[in-house]
Amino acid sequence: MDIGFIGLGNMGRGMVQSLLRAGHRVVVWNRTPERADELVALGAERAATPFEAAEVGVVFTMLADDAATEAVVAGPHGILAGLPRDGIHVASSTLSVRYSAELAERHRTRGQHYVAAPVFGRPDAAAQGALRLVIAGQPGAIARLQPAFAALGSQQFVIGERPEHAHAVKIAGNFLILSLVELLSEAFVLADKAGVSRERFFEVASAVFSSPLADRYGRALLEQRFQPPGFRLTLGLKDIRLALELAEATHTPLPIADLVHQHALEAMARGQAELDFTSLLRVVEAHAGLHRPE
Amino acid sequence: MDIGFIGLGNMGRGMVQSLLRAGHRVVVWNRTPERADELVALGAERAATPFEAAEVGVVFTMLADDAATEAVVAGPHGILAGLPRDGIHVASSTLSVRYSAELAERHRTRGQHYVAAPVFGRPDAAAQGALRLVIAGQPGAIARLQPAFAALGSQQFVIGERPEHAHAVKIAGNFLILSLVELLSEAFVLADKAGVSRERFFEVASAVFSSPLADRYGRALLEQRFQPPGFRLTLGLKDIRLALELAEATHTPLPIADLVHQHALEAMARGQAELDFTSLLRVVEAHAGLHRPE
Amino acid sequence: MDIGFIGLGNMGRGMVQSLLRAGHRVVVWNRTPERADELVALGAERAATPFEAAEVGVVFTMLADDAATEAVVAGPHGILAGLPRDGIHVASSTLSVRYSAELAERHRTRGQHYVAAPVFGRPDAAAQGALRLVIAGQPGAIARLQPAFAALGSQQFVIGERPEHAHAVKIAGNFLILSLVELLSEAFVLADKAGVSRERFFEVASAVFSSPLADRYGRALLEQRFQPPGFRLTLGLKDIRLALELAEATHTPLPIADLVHQHALEAMARGQAELDFTSLLRVVEAHAGLHRPE
Amino acid sequence: MDIGFIGLGNMGRGMVQSLLRAGHRVVVWNRTPERADELVALGAERAATPFEAAEVGVVFTMLADDAATEAVVAGPHGILAGLPRDGIHVASSTLSVRYSAELAERHRTRGQHYVAAPVFGRPDAAAQGALRLVIAGQPGAIARLQPAFAALGSQQFVIGERPEHAHAVKIAGNFLILSLVELLSEAFVLADKAGVSRERFFEVASAVFSSPLADRYGRALLEQRFQPPGFRLTLGLKDIRLALELAEATHTPLPIADLVHQHALEAMARGQAELDFTSLLRVVEAHAGLHRPE
Repeated sequence: MDIGFIGLGNMGRGMVQSLLRAGHRVVVWNRTPERADELVALGAERAATPFEAAEVGVVFTMLADDAATEAVVAGPHGILAGLPRDGIHVASSTLSVRYSAELAERHRTRGQHYVAAPVFGRPDAAAQGALRLVIAGQPGAIARLQPAFAALGSQQFVIGERPEHAHAVKIAGNFLILSLVELLSEAFVLADKAGVSRERFFEVASAVFSSPLADRYGRALLEQRFQPPGFRLTLGLKDIRLALELAEATHTPLPIADLVHQHALEAMARGQAELDFTSLLRVVEAHAGLHRPE
Repeated sequence: MDIGFIGLGNMGRGMVQSLLRAGHRVVVWNRTPERADELVALGAERAATPFEAAEVGVVFTMLADDAATEAVVAGPHGILAGLPRDGIHVASSTLSVRYSAELAERHRTRGQHYVAAPVFGRPDAAAQGALRLVIAGQPGAIARLQPAFAALGSQQFVIGERPEHAHAVKIAGNFLILSLVELLSEAFVLADKAGVSRERFFEVASAVFSSPLADRYGRALLEQRFQPPGFRLTLGLKDIRLALELAEATHTPLPIADLVHQHALEAMARGQAELDFTSLLRVVEAHAGLHRPE
Repeated sequence: MDIGFIGLGNMGRGMVQSLLRAGHRVVVWNRTPERADELVALGAERAATPFEAAEVGVVFTMLADDAATEAVVAGPHGILAGLPRDGIHVASSTLSVRYSAELAERHRTRGQHYVAAPVFGRPDAAAQGALRLVIAGQPGAIARLQPAFAALGSQQFVIGERPEHAHAVKIAGNFLILSLVELLSEAFVLADKAGVSRERFFEVASAVFSSPLADRYGRALLEQRFQPPGFRLTLGLKDIRLALELAEATHTPLPIADLVHQHALEAMARGQAELDFTSLLRVVEAHAGLHRPE
Repeated sequence: MDIGFIGLGNMGRGMVQSLLRAGHRVVVWNRTPERADELVALGAERAATPFEAAEVGVVFTMLADDAATEAVVAGPHGILAGLPRDGIHVASSTLSVRYSAELAERHRTRGQHYVAAPVFGRPDAAAQGALRLVIAGQPGAIARLQPAFAALGSQQFVIGERPEHAHAVKIAGNFLILSLVELLSEAFVLADKAGVSRERFFEVASAVFSSPLADRYGRALLEQRFQPPGFRLTLGLKDIRLALELAEATHTPLPIADLVHQHALEAMARGQAELDFTSLLRVVEAHAGLHRPE
């Protein structure tokens, strides 16, 4: 299958590796072109513009947010201009529901397809083709994408025909994960202040949850390795904001999200922007008098 | 081993069955004596008072709260009076940290032992000897209890020598579980209002969490079977109050607990006291305009 | 003084009356032209476009929000095009800090002045020239506006030279007022559920606060006259959102604002959009089981 | 009138001065007897025990909380024992609703009267006889107390016949005041981070509120004079806890109270127990990255 791919961050590079490994032809573009070098060494081709990557007929985008996506979508060198009629734009980034719905409409009016396929999983899962794909769009387009999806992910969840619904699921899922970090932080600090070692408490909590996800975050909170960040605090703040925007648009009070948002803002104000999102723990600790900013 | 056992609710009856199955002699007492009938048929003996159950030398209590425990501890017919010097009181209820510390002191001044052993697990796990035991107390006393603990649980977590620390772990653990119900409720309602079916969303969330615990609660929230209650809302409210009391005593702000507490109070005000704790979902739905009280 | 005036809602019409009464020449424009009729009868002149109103040399805008303001600012028939060099645009609406700063810049690059002058006060105060004006901009421009400001308000607060700072003050002030409604609602419901009549409680609270503002809102909450709205819930929601946007941009957690926002969203979900903002009380009542939606 | 008076803190001493000035005979008792010296110099008599102060026939208590009150109520030397049949115990402290109701019952079964008369006002108002009295109890007893009440206060608010209702009003009133401190703190910090001087912002807010109470607290927050405390943080924490206990007992979610409580706990954890309650500002500042603990 011929595939264009735009956005070569940690996730994007892993995804391209998986596509190449499965034998697909991949034409890549990135704002910082050097990011493509190692992939070209693995067999990828280089596009000069997003337009060229889209010309291939199927183009993935895997970028930080709405704005970064819009920057490769619009304009004379962009995806909308380059994608052929009946071509497919696959948006794997975590986009806002509003923007995703808007993209769907813009592609439709040009006779192009738009499939939302945000993913759960970390860069290592991306490189191993072991992502969880949350997919929404026209069944025909989704069917055409199967060879690519099979290379990228171990599980596919088809949500329905409206692409923005896949982004809603991704946003609600990220809200769960970010809130879990807050929740574990509060429980750790409570145990600690009650005189119980966090490690000891977490052995129990880990057995009760028996969740690899809770284990990963629990351990990160115990080790307090906030640098280098696996998932930057600024990105977590963005994701919780996406949940709150969706909540606002649908008139849904979401008090835990507001709480996580408050703590993420405080972390920003404390200078933790470039630390891992689990450094939210420091905010919770500070509130309990446990952690004093350096 | 000879064991007294006080408190024959759903959990207590299951625990006594497991003790009997392992060949222990069990002398039971319950405020409502008929609750003992089926256990007597299985080989348990009946005590006339908590005093008599304690006379056996090792006595478990498995009661609703501090007050119910104090009612069998104090007075001329109570445990303190009946337990021999060097006897052991094992408190498996979810007690407050303050009361647990106080019990430890009262037993100590009488030359008696006090071991905290609250449990995680449901009545079926109790009846199968598959509980998770969170244990704290003097190592010698804990060692003596091994035959009983082995019959009751599949896992033991020894927290340390101060009994109230085991109760702190239980309280912090229950805080996690109750908050998970709130968190899943918020995520379900957000997905729903964004136009995504909750079932579809939960397939994804379940895969991401891969937690049997999250699965159980997620499914309960999807099915909305709030009656008969597995875990009564009033008991959940009590548990979240225990977390908040511990937070107050240790000067630990615990915002998610406050939130769950607010919603539990609202559920009480809406008449949900006797429903399952997962009926918290109705509060979250009502806030989003989804559920109108009947 | 010759003055253009755009935006003839309840506030705008009152302000124009005050300007006319003071002898100023006022050229008005409104999207719905009939709104100008009564003012024309009082001596106002009619502009065909925002451009024409701006041509006068000094032009006020008093519109619902950023978007409504932008609609009269931009384009060939807009203020930016019509205002002469050295003319002054006075923004009396409650604008976002970001948009206000942006407007300042756009006017500056055209050699035009921009003064922010949001107001505190209700339509009756506007019509009586008894508003409180919060003013920021270049001292020279502010000095030139004195005849107009004197006609409009009983008090002027000059915040500084950066126009958006006046809007920040207005936004923070509205946050105080909206939160006061939430706070009084919670206190009323607490007293009520404790068995005390709200009226009796409010006599005490009113004496303790001795604030005409608290009195007005307290009485509105007691009377529960939510219709016709003095201040629509949707506008209150907009204002609390402006506070939250400013909080987000400056990394300032604002938990009371989040709370008011949650309750305002719930009020929207309950269908209270067109009621007065004090109908927030219904949300607080519902949470305490006091008020059941019809 | 002959009056016993127990509790000679800042408030109590002022109240006794006002009673003496009006010509009443006052028999005082305080745990630390030296506190009575200056009052004895003004004409007060000294009681050896609470019993003796109660024997006078009418006895006021003005103590820190339920526990301090119970310490002078119970026992052979206490008020219950000393107060004659038909005597009146006037509780001016801020007591919990539950304890106040319990006191009413205990006095009733002894043929004694119990009137709740908590007050609003500071020590200077107490010394000038300018308190606001919130009164509840039997009309006959309240009538008998008029000479005393007239000496103490400038305003009387009679809530009804159930004494605990006066305490509910006091608790809800204090909740308003404490929350106002939180609210002003948030608004000040928002203005500050938006680049506006707090003083400038407060001029506007003060004009909008026109409340002497808001002015007093606003100025205290601007000056940041947290020492010596006018109203200790620990006492504020106690009062917000009383509001939350009442909320719990009546199934009333009270989210602003939870918020203030969280911040007060954090202030305790930061070592601010002995500072004025307005030092809550430091917590709000710290969350916005403005104030770093020394």
